[in-house]
Amino acid sequence: MDHTRQYAESLDTQDLIGHFRSRFHIPDSDLVYFDGNSLGRLPIATRERLRDAVDREWGHDLIRGWDTWIDLARSVGDLLASGVLHVSPGEVVLSDSTSVNVYKLAAAALDARPGRHVIVTDDDNFPTDRYLLEGLAAARGLELRLVATDIDAGLDPARVAAALDDDVALVCLSHVAYRSGAIADMVAINTAAHRVGALTLWDLCHSAGAVRVPLRESGADLAVGCTYKYLNAGPGAPAFLYVREDLQAGLRQPIWGWFGRRDQFAMAPGYDPAPSIDRFLVGTPPVLGGYAAQEGARLVAEAGIDALAEKGARLTDYAIALASEWLGDRLALASPRDSAVRGSHVTFHSPEAWQLCQALKAANVIPDFRTPDRLRIGLAPLYTRFVDVHEGMSRLRSIVESGSHLSFAATLGRVT
Amino acid sequence: MDHTRQYAESLDTQDLIGHFRSRFHIPDSDLVYFDGNSLGRLPIATRERLRDAVDREWGHDLIRGWDTWIDLARSVGDLLASGVLHVSPGEVVLSDSTSVNVYKLAAAALDARPGRHVIVTDDDNFPTDRYLLEGLAAARGLELRLVATDIDAGLDPARVAAALDDDVALVCLSHVAYRSGAIADMVAINTAAHRVGALTLWDLCHSAGAVRVPLRESGADLAVGCTYKYLNAGPGAPAFLYVREDLQAGLRQPIWGWFGRRDQFAMAPGYDPAPSIDRFLVGTPPVLGGYAAQEGARLVAEAGIDALAEKGARLTDYAIALASEWLGDRLALASPRDSAVRGSHVTFHSPEAWQLCQALKAANVIPDFRTPDRLRIGLAPLYTRFVDVHEGMSRLRSIVESGSHLSFAATLGRVT
Repeated sequence: MDHTRQYAESLDTQDLIGHFRSRFHIPDSDLVYFDGNSLGRLPIATRERLRDAVDREWGHDLIRGWDTWIDLARSVGDLLASGVLHVSPGEVVLSDSTSVNVYKLAAAALDARPGRHVIVTDDDNFPTDRYLLEGLAAARGLELRLVATDIDAGLDPARVAAALDDDVALVCLSHVAYRSGAIADMVAINTAAHRVGALTLWDLCHSAGAVRVPLRESGADLAVGCTYKYLNAGPGAPAFLYVREDLQAGLRQPIWGWFGRRDQFAMAPGYDPAPSIDRFLVGTPPVLGGYAAQEGARLVAEAGIDALAEKGARLTDYAIALASEWLGDRLALASPRDSAVRGSHVTFHSPEAWQLCQALKAANVIPDFRTPDRLRIGLAPLYTRFVDVHEGMSRLRSIVESGSHLSFAATLGRVT
Repeated sequence: MDHTRQYAESLDTQDLIGHFRSRFHIPDSDLVYFDGNSLGRLPIATRERLRDAVDREWGHDLIRGWDTWIDLARSVGDLLASGVLHVSPGEVVLSDSTSVNVYKLAAAALDARPGRHVIVTDDDNFPTDRYLLEGLAAARGLELRLVATDIDAGLDPARVAAALDDDVALVCLSHVAYRSGAIADMVAINTAAHRVGALTLWDLCHSAGAVRVPLRESGADLAVGCTYKYLNAGPGAPAFLYVREDLQAGLRQPIWGWFGRRDQFAMAPGYDPAPSIDRFLVGTPPVLGGYAAQEGARLVAEAGIDALAEKGARLTDYAIALASEWLGDRLALASPRDSAVRGSHVTFHSPEAWQLCQALKAANVIPDFRTPDRLRIGLAPLYTRFVDVHEGMSRLRSIVESGSHLSFAATLGRVT
């Protein structure tokens, strides 16, 4: 491979979705941002939309704004369904945080499998998912069965299958692993889970907006995800949840708030769940975050998931190639090498990962550190250029070659 | 009483907190806004803060913004504690929606009273509270005991006391009733509940920012409330929750998300609740809504609850007096007459309430309709002037005298 900056520039010139970068507010042109998988950038349309929502809709329309806002959770859900997740309108809705949604859907699934005593997840699932499932298991006297995962290679579907039996009520896993970026085999795992009569709940936080999610093709039952990563909806924007249409009528979630009630504004006695995905809603939804999710989802839908996934694969392949050429065995790959089973981030091992992160930040490159020794590089395909990858890896190379990172304290994330 | 506009103007001139109106964005000077208890107005400081948070903190700082944002839930909680609720720092935190918070705290309370089988609320409690408690009772096989309420007069503490026995785990009530505005006797009810060993959970949605809430003086155990009414934090802004300090260590809420875990970013195995109010947090908090809550709470704290409550009482007294003078028995009071037991809104009965609401909106006055025959007038003391009350009631008088409201369809809220 050609390792010149000119080559990176030529890749950008040929990039069919490269123009989407101009749709984002990018005030610091020197910054190399490798953390769009933690917090996505600000779309220009969102900035304008939020100003209008604050000044005109809230400031002027006041309570009358709810004539519009009341439909936001559903309309953004429908947009995510059609443009991002490729499922049907009415199967997705914006609601609460990812964590609250995991709780609601996992509890609903457990209620739908009475008499079964096991929840299956993996020992490298994102912490909040593990904690939430642990809480549900503790409250109900169930077993939380952890599948052992090779963190760098990702979930082995055979190991998941081996953990299943007819006492399993729910299998809850991440589609794209938050450390390695490994993509789980949703088809194989859903098939195995359904064979024993369990329901599946997928965490799509690192998938939505970055890779194709085969919810439909794999017969997935339930899913949740956030909007502040690849969907670029801003810090703490509301999450979404997916419930396959044929399951909705049979599932009840435990938090019976008024937004989940049929004919909510009748304010009548007694809870009666709405006859739609609305039954998974709870309280008054955040309007500003809802608009930001709408604008973010629109951009992703416009670019198209297939184009985004393909570019994400090429960006991460390119980062791996540069790391290999420039840093050799100073950085060991901590992600799958095959881009077909990797999301839009790539991770490397280094005993000095924490110090490298600090040095990169000082050099205006923002990566992420993951315990205990991982340097994670997120390459959001909607606005990251090949020259950004070249520039960021180049700065990393200079740091490693000069040893300048060793002047940063190794106080966190040290391999002990 | 003098019923001239000049008199209203003189009341405004003497109003010691009248200048706070200038701190709000008020683009339509003709609008009479009587619904600040549903959605408060936009503070100018909030508008600026949100622009900066979007453009600079999100747009420029990106993930580095979390260095600041991570403390927002607690710092706004502390501000609400000191400036609005008069409890201690560390007893209040911003989190989720009011509905999710009712669920978390009610569940925590029930877990803390094992072997008891009854939840007490009242039959006129705000719908989402009733539904949430119904859900918890159904899931645990408990009885939801409804105290009968005289909707206009408010909760009779003797009736609550009569519903209590040593099988009651939790008493959950609203401090200010959403229809009548009646203030519940928190001291008497907490005393009665504690006598039988029950915990109390108060909904402060219609209280916070409008009236003094005697959490401390009454020994209240738990509370929740929203920020988008009298705290002016905008549509769907995050809610708050209060847990008395001495109870925190002994209470566990059921939604074990990562923001509630001790040493969250260690991302370690196993849930271990934070040793503070943070244990009642769940997922990634909404940053924009958090800032809006912060600015809103600052304004309320600056004006002071006692001044706000006093003005709210005078505004509602004034509205009652004008209604009585101008409309006589066409509008019957549906709120307590004594302002000492009334929040900052006042409600009237009329068989034509729905039509009056429609006609008022057409005349650029925004009140609220409450089933089945109620016209609710919210008079947020931070920005509502006596001339607004005069003008709004005057337009109502013209509508009633001309009968123009009868041209609106009586399709909703008709007394059947």
